[in-house]
Amino acid sequence: MQGGYGLIPDAAMVVDEAIRWIGPATDLPAAYRDLPAHALQGRLVTPALIDCHTHIVFGGTRAAEFELRLQGASYEEIARAGGGILSTVTATRAASLDELVAQALPRLDAILAQGAGTVEVKSGYGLTIEDELKLLRGARRLGTLRPVSIITTHLAAHAIPPEYKGRADAYIDEVAIPSLTAAHAEGLVDAVDAFCEGIAFTPSQVDRLFRHARALGLPVKLHAEQLSDLGGAALAARHNALSADHLEYLSPAGIAAMAQAGTVAVILPGAFYTLRETQAPPITALRAAGVPMAVATDCNPGSSPMTSLPLAMNMACTLFRLTPEEALMGTTAHAARALGLSDRGTLGIGQRADLAVWDAAHPAELSYRIGAEALHTRIIGGRFDA
Amino acid sequence: MQGGYGLIPDAAMVVDEAIRWIGPATDLPAAYRDLPAHALQGRLVTPALIDCHTHIVFGGTRAAEFELRLQGASYEEIARAGGGILSTVTATRAASLDELVAQALPRLDAILAQGAGTVEVKSGYGLTIEDELKLLRGARRLGTLRPVSIITTHLAAHAIPPEYKGRADAYIDEVAIPSLTAAHAEGLVDAVDAFCEGIAFTPSQVDRLFRHARALGLPVKLHAEQLSDLGGAALAARHNALSADHLEYLSPAGIAAMAQAGTVAVILPGAFYTLRETQAPPITALRAAGVPMAVATDCNPGSSPMTSLPLAMNMACTLFRLTPEEALMGTTAHAARALGLSDRGTLGIGQRADLAVWDAAHPAELSYRIGAEALHTRIIGGRFDA
Ligand SMILES: [Zn+2]
Ligand SMILES: [Zn+2]
Repeated sequence: MQGGYGLIPDAAMVVDEAIRWIGPATDLPAAYRDLPAHALQGRLVTPALIDCHTHIVFGGTRAAEFELRLQGASYEEIARAGGGILSTVTATRAASLDELVAQALPRLDAILAQGAGTVEVKSGYGLTIEDELKLLRGARRLGTLRPVSIITTHLAAHAIPPEYKGRADAYIDEVAIPSLTAAHAEGLVDAVDAFCEGIAFTPSQVDRLFRHARALGLPVKLHAEQLSDLGGAALAARHNALSADHLEYLSPAGIAAMAQAGTVAVILPGAFYTLRETQAPPITALRAAGVPMAVATDCNPGSSPMTSLPLAMNMACTLFRLTPEEALMGTTAHAARALGLSDRGTLGIGQRADLAVWDAAHPAELSYRIGAEALHTRIIGGRFDA
Repeated sequence: MQGGYGLIPDAAMVVDEAIRWIGPATDLPAAYRDLPAHALQGRLVTPALIDCHTHIVFGGTRAAEFELRLQGASYEEIARAGGGILSTVTATRAASLDELVAQALPRLDAILAQGAGTVEVKSGYGLTIEDELKLLRGARRLGTLRPVSIITTHLAAHAIPPEYKGRADAYIDEVAIPSLTAAHAEGLVDAVDAFCEGIAFTPSQVDRLFRHARALGLPVKLHAEQLSDLGGAALAARHNALSADHLEYLSPAGIAAMAQAGTVAVILPGAFYTLRETQAPPITALRAAGVPMAVATDCNPGSSPMTSLPLAMNMACTLFRLTPEEALMGTTAHAARALGLSDRGTLGIGQRADLAVWDAAHPAELSYRIGAEALHTRIIGGRFDA
């Protein structure tokens, strides 16, 4: 099998909350030989996976809408039946913080059961100041309930609620920016995000939000070029964005801007698959330009109700022709970078001891298998998951 | 939410190895009220799923080939590196019965963990009399190791091994038919299958095999119209086949023949997805003709390394536009029919008490979710799975 991966056969690791030593077992220094040992029986160990783009905190379900559409209902009929993103906004607003957390937990558990140790969670279904705060508080609470690092993103400009219809600028001024200020004051924001698209916010509205984010010292990322090319990726790069995400319609100029800024390209094949898109992101050009590519589930109720990073890796390979090594980098080292984290995503000395142990002989198997249950166990901060 | 499903809210069931009573809990007859009870907390109960088309018993792995192809290797390079179906044949021949069973078990376990209670297993990677028998014995042994019904299919004409290159007729006479006779004598064959395709066997070769199968009193099924239209489905229907499988290139005449014979259309979206096919099977016409549609994983190392029926259901909906109700019928009642089984696949009185209990409120969620771990538990023959 080709590909580096830095795979070490018959390896040993020494960990406390971080990795203290790693190498061939025969080279294990004498000083470590009397430590308590856990035999992993030749299993594959990778960094715990990192899901760097999710929307797992929301109210309600969209299974009925999925079914209606397959029964041939028109968009009007679905909207009349209460479908679409606004149905999620309505259910999210109606839900309490406790209810939102309870509904998100099975989704988080499914993602963890497939090997994740760090999960990014976006707000964006509240669309009022108080409801956006509620979502971010819910995300933070998830991190106290399971062995996982939750990274919060305030998706301050996701959609325009009915009360702001035709007044997107007013939404930026009256909801997006004030909610960001309030959420940041409460310590709820690790990064700021927006949806730059014809059906959402314009580049100049996003730019205004991003200026505010950066004035607060917060990094930004952007849903860009998913359905059309508005130059969102280049705008994000101008703000030194951590990542630009989706990117099906990314232009050569956008690629160049991302390469120069070091902005990560977050590839989201679950949405491409679910929406039956036909234009794939420009993987070959991104690779040639040296833009790091991450892969995430985009777990959300409308366009990607997906809770498995290995399946996202398989889809990135099958649908977008990433190599299995790129797919694994995309859910480890590059996903860490997309979240601005330098303490995880590789098995280097000093990195957090967040590990995934797989019933697999080679890392290519993680991308190759479809819908398998290959995780043996997780080790988070040096501790075996129960 | 639309769709019948025959869903009973707040239901009760009475089971021993079979279903003795089912209905609204308030209607439970007094005679049953003192039986030991298990509260399922409002969870969704469906028939245990039925995977009616798999190739889970084989030797080796094709992850390296998957990786090579994504690294840009040509078909010649992959063949030189030992890839392709013949690499599976070589590894299968080299493996012992015990090794084949040990390698198949994790695949079976993954399929069961996603709700299956009955799994069909095909031979077809041995391609000698003795190696085909070994595969079928392995399949039967799997059924003794787990709470599952294994249904065996002798895929007697799957591929032409190198020693019969250019001599497919001789393979039918010297391997396919004698191995079928021997396997049947050993009680290893529940049905007989073949691959009718330009790269495999002609309709007249398949016809010869099927005549032999029917002379032995065995039902037949066929891999038909996957890559081209050779009239395989109509040939299968003339032999009263239980099913014709794949069917991307199925013609109107093939649909009419299947409808008349009552042959089930087994839809295999995992192979369509993995091979990046663009021609979908004629779902609308099959529906209009009243041909029952089943959905299966096609789990195999080359074109569908998939081990999740709910994911196959999601792909059938997303890629082929089945409704969620059709997808569930496809992995329950219609899958049973594709295996010639009338004692499972529905929740009727007298049916086997093979049940799947899901963390879901509505059956549409099973098809809607992607890569979730929604199974709560299985009940097989009335017994809770450990
Ligand atoms: Zn998103
Ligand atoms: Zn097959």
